[in-house]
Amino acid sequence: MAHNRTLGLYCDQTISVVYVVGSDLLINSNRCAPPGTDFFSVKCTPNVQYIISPPPQETSHLSPLPLSGDSMIIVRMSHASDTENESKLSVRYYGSDKKVLGTARLYLTALEISLDVDADRDGVVERNNPNKGSWKWGPNGHGAVLLVNCDCERTYWKTPDSEKTYISKVSDLKDMSLMVLRTRGPAKLPNDYKLTLHISQSDAESVRVFRSKLTGKQNVTSYSFTSFLNDYPLVLSREVLSQEVPYLGGDAEINFYVEGLRFTDKDFNGLISINLSVLEPISERVPETPIFTDKVVFRVAPWIMTPNTLDPLEVFVCSTADNYQFLKGMKNFVGKSGHKLKICYEYMNRGDRWMQDELEFGYIDSPHQRFPVVLDSPRDGKLQDFPYKELLGPDFGYVTREPDRENISSLDSFGNLEVSPPVTVNGKNYPFGRILIGVAFPTATKGRNMTKVVQDFLWAQKVQDPIALFSDWLYVGHVDEFMTFVPAPDRKGFRLLLASPDAAFKLFRRLQSNGHGEAKLFEVKTGERKKEKGFSPPTAACKHLTDEESITVDEILNDDSFHVQNMYVQSCINWNRDVLKRELGLEEEDIIDLPILFKLVVGTKHQDAYRALAYYPDMVNMIVLGKHLGIPKPFGPKVDGHCALEAEMCSLMEGLGLKCTFIDDFASYHKLLGEVHCGSNVRRGMFDFKWWNLEM
Amino acid sequence: MAHNRTLGLYCDQTISVVYVVGSDLLINSNRCAPPGTDFFSVKCTPNVQYIISPPPQETSHLSPLPLSGDSMIIVRMSHASDTENESKLSVRYYGSDKKVLGTARLYLTALEISLDVDADRDGVVERNNPNKGSWKWGPNGHGAVLLVNCDCERTYWKTPDSEKTYISKVSDLKDMSLMVLRTRGPAKLPNDYKLTLHISQSDAESVRVFRSKLTGKQNVTSYSFTSFLNDYPLVLSREVLSQEVPYLGGDAEINFYVEGLRFTDKDFNGLISINLSVLEPISERVPETPIFTDKVVFRVAPWIMTPNTLDPLEVFVCSTADNYQFLKGMKNFVGKSGHKLKICYEYMNRGDRWMQDELEFGYIDSPHQRFPVVLDSPRDGKLQDFPYKELLGPDFGYVTREPDRENISSLDSFGNLEVSPPVTVNGKNYPFGRILIGVAFPTATKGRNMTKVVQDFLWAQKVQDPIALFSDWLYVGHVDEFMTFVPAPDRKGFRLLLASPDAAFKLFRRLQSNGHGEAKLFEVKTGERKKEKGFSPPTAACKHLTDEESITVDEILNDDSFHVQNMYVQSCINWNRDVLKRELGLEEEDIIDLPILFKLVVGTKHQDAYRALAYYPDMVNMIVLGKHLGIPKPFGPKVDGHCALEAEMCSLMEGLGLKCTFIDDFASYHKLLGEVHCGSNVRRGMFDFKWWNLEM
Ligand SMILES: [Ca+2]
Ligand SMILES: [Ca+2]
Ligand SMILES: [Ca+2]
Ligand SMILES: [Ca+2]
Repeated sequence: MAHNRTLGLYCDQTISVVYVVGSDLLINSNRCAPPGTDFFSVKCTPNVQYIISPPPQETSHLSPLPLSGDSMIIVRMSHASDTENESKLSVRYYGSDKKVLGTARLYLTALEISLDVDADRDGVVERNNPNKGSWKWGPNGHGAVLLVNCDCERTYWKTPDSEKTYISKVSDLKDMSLMVLRTRGPAKLPNDYKLTLHISQSDAESVRVFRSKLTGKQNVTSYSFTSFLNDYPLVLSREVLSQEVPYLGGDAEINFYVEGLRFTDKDFNGLISINLSVLEPISERVPETPIFTDKVVFRVAPWIMTPNTLDPLEVFVCSTADNYQFLKGMKNFVGKSGHKLKICYEYMNRGDRWMQDELEFGYIDSPHQRFPVVLDSPRDGKLQDFPYKELLGPDFGYVTREPDRENISSLDSFGNLEVSPPVTVNGKNYPFGRILIGVAFPTATKGRNMTKVVQDFLWAQKVQDPIALFSDWLYVGHVDEFMTFVPAPDRKGFRLLLASPDAAFKLFRRLQSNGHGEAKLFEVKTGERKKEKGFSPPTAACKHLTDEESITVDEILNDDSFHVQNMYVQSCINWNRDVLKRELGLEEEDIIDLPILFKLVVGTKHQDAYRALAYYPDMVNMIVLGKHLGIPKPFGPKVDGHCALEAEMCSLMEGLGLKCTFIDDFASYHKLLGEVHCGSNVRRGMFDFKWWNLEM
Repeated sequence: MAHNRTLGLYCDQTISVVYVVGSDLLINSNRCAPPGTDFFSVKCTPNVQYIISPPPQETSHLSPLPLSGDSMIIVRMSHASDTENESKLSVRYYGSDKKVLGTARLYLTALEISLDVDADRDGVVERNNPNKGSWKWGPNGHGAVLLVNCDCERTYWKTPDSEKTYISKVSDLKDMSLMVLRTRGPAKLPNDYKLTLHISQSDAESVRVFRSKLTGKQNVTSYSFTSFLNDYPLVLSREVLSQEVPYLGGDAEINFYVEGLRFTDKDFNGLISINLSVLEPISERVPETPIFTDKVVFRVAPWIMTPNTLDPLEVFVCSTADNYQFLKGMKNFVGKSGHKLKICYEYMNRGDRWMQDELEFGYIDSPHQRFPVVLDSPRDGKLQDFPYKELLGPDFGYVTREPDRENISSLDSFGNLEVSPPVTVNGKNYPFGRILIGVAFPTATKGRNMTKVVQDFLWAQKVQDPIALFSDWLYVGHVDEFMTFVPAPDRKGFRLLLASPDAAFKLFRRLQSNGHGEAKLFEVKTGERKKEKGFSPPTAACKHLTDEESITVDEILNDDSFHVQNMYVQSCINWNRDVLKRELGLEEEDIIDLPILFKLVVGTKHQDAYRALAYYPDMVNMIVLGKHLGIPKPFGPKVDGHCALEAEMCSLMEGLGLKCTFIDDFASYHKLLGEVHCGSNVRRGMFDFKWWNLEM
């Protein structure tokens, strides 16, 4: 983006300057005119153009022009020079009798310079895009994209690449954005002129620039470590804010590789500028003058979550000493739905089975590269090493946020971090859906919340504008305990499933009135009954929890206190229903209520408040693999040999072409206050939609 | 902003709830229908309206309707209730033989509630403005305005009001924004329902809310201190994020007074939300449910600077032991231009004469109140107490920014902080002009800069989008050493005046060619010659500084090294000219070059770099009072008894109808490296334009 330069000429002196093609040189014809000047004339070599502004009365440029007030000589050149001082311009001054009083001379060395990036986002670094110096969202937006280099090219001694001080492998280059310095001009710059690449202090926290010493043409082949080091030297970083770059002469290109160091956050809006200046020397005791500056802008790609409606790629579960039954069910279910089951063994999970809570899968995207990125929760259970040790790797990034002081609550586990399918709300389109987290009511004095640094990170990504739901009414406190999304062939392409005690009571009343009042819940195979070691469940306010001896439909319907507890739970879920309908633009027809009962318990920690736990296995806490639903087996009342809850579930899902598989997680998950979804995690494919095309 | 609430009814039970007028209650007719229900009917008291959605086939509402899938009953009331549970609705369920199977009853207490602010910015708090919950710039924007309560009602033991823990005087209330809670309903809320005002943790850093215990109608008369305290209790603050507010019953209003605590900055975007929730009790062992939340949004008013084109109100100068001559000149000039001169005496300035550098006058504005606010520079010279001790007071605010670690340079003095008159740049209108500061080139390694916390504050105010100029080439380093603005009757209403060594040389060459080569500069009255005590000027690279024995025009024109130094200075000023033309949308016709010469010196501190000082008193460093310009007397070469520089200056200004008065600041200011502008400061009137009408 060239612009204008005011230049002083001096009578009977010769000024020689570098001129950058595309800019204007402005010379005040009057300023250095000797006393008694009445006329002036301008002469220049062929490749120099000039105009006089305001234009003189006479049209011919040959005869001397009258010198009036402050007429400007605007000088332009359209091509680079081949040799130094190749082009000339002179201004001659005449007295009233046309006698020459003096001549001011200007020697010009023209350069073509442009610092280029892929500002039109087509994967190619075009030359001098007029929009490269600013960033705009939307399909006809512009501005280059930068990835945080948070994967790790090495599979041993792993650290994210952005924390290494050098480029270790050529594969790392494809995670970076190409930036090309294109110059045309004489073989050498006039003495002491310099080209300098520079960034601001604050931007230096977020970006590094490497230079490729291979002139753009050579392709990159085999590499030894040392040759690699000096072929891709580090140019700009936190320690080096500005650095001279060589002028190669003739028609040349230098490739730079730019990498992002950190994600957008509360204190960083994601925008980074890199500048290339031509420095004109004056004397060594005064600073060089940047006579031309070209600026390019990058925006760091946001971290994007993947909703249940995206295709599953890998399913992760843990294998523990006691979850054989669950694992068998999962293997059969995942296999049947045609996907890969990846098992995290005990040496890595150290007995921590809650794969959903330690991490959230997402990804980052750019025109030139995309890869999955795991967000590591500050929960740091026994499973805390799994994301870093097992997932971080080549083209698999890693990011985490840990609070320094704030203490961690159960709401920081990522069963409490979900994302809706794409929605449109009052005309505003959310092609990536919206992030959902659970917190306490703002009016609550002693409520639990998701830690601020994680919330700040989620809100700062912008492209999945988060919604805060109320989940503090639950003992564990995760949004996946009362809601999920399943794909659907019609309407908005999905349904919101909500746990509904009212729906359960309606079902049980129907069973009772159909004569099944005696049917029993919890008829679990005896083998499963023994106590679970490890996590000690909280004391139960009501009698049902610890000893699951079976209970009949009649007994449930006659227990008024149990009904009152579930009316409270229904009011909490109704509150969330209203928020979800408003913030996701849903109607009743987009929601399906599932028959799920809860009970209130008072936990050891939260001495005073009652909080809710699922009464029988929480069917909404399911795993969704395309049309296949892996649902916690509810052990509901049997009618003609079939579980009425399973039957109701299947009938509700049938209409959407969804296939239910019930997985027995009773002993190893439900009794430890979690279910199938809490014990699993699914890495999914990426959206086709490109985040930079979002209208913001 | 009311919205929908999903409500569960229960067969053969009565639910009684508070309903907020303007919202919809959604009841699922199917959910609590007893088994075997085929028909249902709805009945309600007159002031309750309902519709069935999707609408039933038959039109008449009397005969029982067939119970199908999930038809919703949507309940509305248009007026508040007079008494509790005054309105009723019941849903009756029938078997296939129309036998009544059960009835679900709902008792309703309707409330009208709205938390109101002056969202249409007309100084009046209108009822329930639909836009009160968001903020939008522009003439048809919306959103309430909040002032930082940074003045001080007391004139002794001064601290800004926002740092006091209570409202000390009724005058403080007019600096705050009125917020009115309007309620209509029965005398008393159903038991345990509560109204709660609440703000987020981060907003609590920026706002406080007081409550007026006088029901809106009483006007405020005389006050004793204690009665004051309990009439205006503090409701919300950093320590109290949510607080119950009383429900007064009937048709009532409670006035709240809201004050801003801090200005917009890098870490605070200026937006604050305050929420009013209706809390529904369930049982004391579970949190109350916010069944309705009304939100209002404020934006904190930005700090606005005042350019030379605004009318002067007060002129401030210092009186020191040695500046009698300057003071006499200023008194005469300020008096002649019809304005007040305020003198800061030695007890307060302790010998520090640089009134321009310690502070910058500005103001804050809102529909209900406006007052000047002084920005106190982190320079902290001997004059550092003046802004707090002398300026802070009733309706005169104070704000400062001090870096904790970064050390202070001369560029932090506010001679380096100016603002342009209003401009339009490529179609974008800046009705408040643009802030100008001086920094080093971004490519300089050892350059001086304005400290980051001050830059962050200036950039965060948004309404005078700052421009960074290059001033590090100057020994002192302030933008007011090479530029200023004067009012003009035509074009853009002003001219930019730039110091121009080239213009000076052209003038001197003309004098020489007219035979005045022998004319002498610096013919200063002998009395003035004695050395100045105090600040020791730097060693001079060239011989002219210390002993101002006079020098002739010929000697100046023959001194090649002096000319080379001024060519360098001209190139620095040209660089700034190009930035100013581009960023303020100026053409050559908007600029006047003043004949001013500089010399390069190497200071004690900046051992290596040469930096520039004015050679004779720097005429651009003038004070502008409307059409009257107070200009440093240049002591230039005399022609026919008149100073040629003064004559040139007058001729350049005459065309704009501006009157030049030359003030002798030679001994007490020029020789201490500053001039008239550096030694004075002008508080000016405010813009008529309102900042919230800006298109952003
Ligand atoms: Ca990499
Ligand atoms: Ca999750
Ligand atoms: Ca006040
Ligand atoms: Ca100033």
